[in-house]
Amino acid sequence: MRILGIDPGSRKTGFGIIEMVRQQPVYVASGVIRVEKFPAPQRLKRIFEAFGELVRQYAPDQVAVEKVFVHKDPVAAIKLGQARGVVLCAAALAELPIYEYTPTRIKGAIVGKGHARKEQVQFMVRQLLRLSETPQEDAADALACALCHGRLAALGVDLSILNKGARF
Amino acid sequence: MRILGIDPGSRKTGFGIIEMVRQQPVYVASGVIRVEKFPAPQRLKRIFEAFGELVRQYAPDQVAVEKVFVHKDPVAAIKLGQARGVVLCAAALAELPIYEYTPTRIKGAIVGKGHARKEQVQFMVRQLLRLSETPQEDAADALACALCHGRLAALGVDLSILNKGARF
Repeated sequence: MRILGIDPGSRKTGFGIIEMVRQQPVYVASGVIRVEKFPAPQRLKRIFEAFGELVRQYAPDQVAVEKVFVHKDPVAAIKLGQARGVVLCAAALAELPIYEYTPTRIKGAIVGKGHARKEQVQFMVRQLLRLSETPQEDAADALACALCHGRLAALGVDLSILNKGARF
Repeated sequence: MRILGIDPGSRKTGFGIIEMVRQQPVYVASGVIRVEKFPAPQRLKRIFEAFGELVRQYAPDQVAVEKVFVHKDPVAAIKLGQARGVVLCAAALAELPIYEYTPTRIKGAIVGKGHARKEQVQFMVRQLLRLSETPQEDAADALACALCHGRLAALGVDLSILNKGARF
């Protein structure tokens, strides 16, 4: 099972692809879709196209997306929503099953603490995937999201229940 | 010049198409893309596909989208953002120029008062387009957005300046 993890953002969207081999995660690829230099709708178009390119290139079976519930700044929330919407839409168009995880759940699954620091998550991503370097922050977040989904799926956790709230 | 006005929403997305004939607006079509009965990403996929269908069927030259700055509820802001993101992305993929207008600007252009009531806007939309019935609320909002753009364009208002803030 190949999982594409996505951490959407209006400027930078992280992605991370892992494969579950005998219930163990294996690193495939990761990176960042950078769109900050483009005007508004062009950014969304580029996220959409880059997502399609990832699907074609790496043929994931499932998509795991970081879910954000709260945001102090309403303008930032709408901007983040715009990027998320494009990712969810592109995944739905590719007919890929989508799973959403809050940062707290991701940290819990990776570090064992829902309120772990960013560095702890990055450290564990590196350990779990036996990477020689720490991936760029947004890529690490996307890999953590993919790992969270892979671990829960490997444990046979009923994801449909976990994701009950994942409506929008 | 044919204008497609859009009022995006996570449950209902209004659309309204007008044509400017000798600087006067002429009604072409309007309606509502209803997606509330579908699960999360399917909603976005359906908005995306419906937008594409509108573009194919009515061949608009420009797209005018209602812009929202503030939102009390951060979850609702992200949901709204997701629907807006899909619309902006679909318009960019169709290579259509996109213009964004705040509700205040739309009301100002249609009623002459930025804080006009919804009924006043609906009344003016009906008058300006010589409609025998008042369109459904979301469709009326989308038509108002298209009318706002058409009026400002007809007046030769420099839209590129008006829309300076229309980045995300």
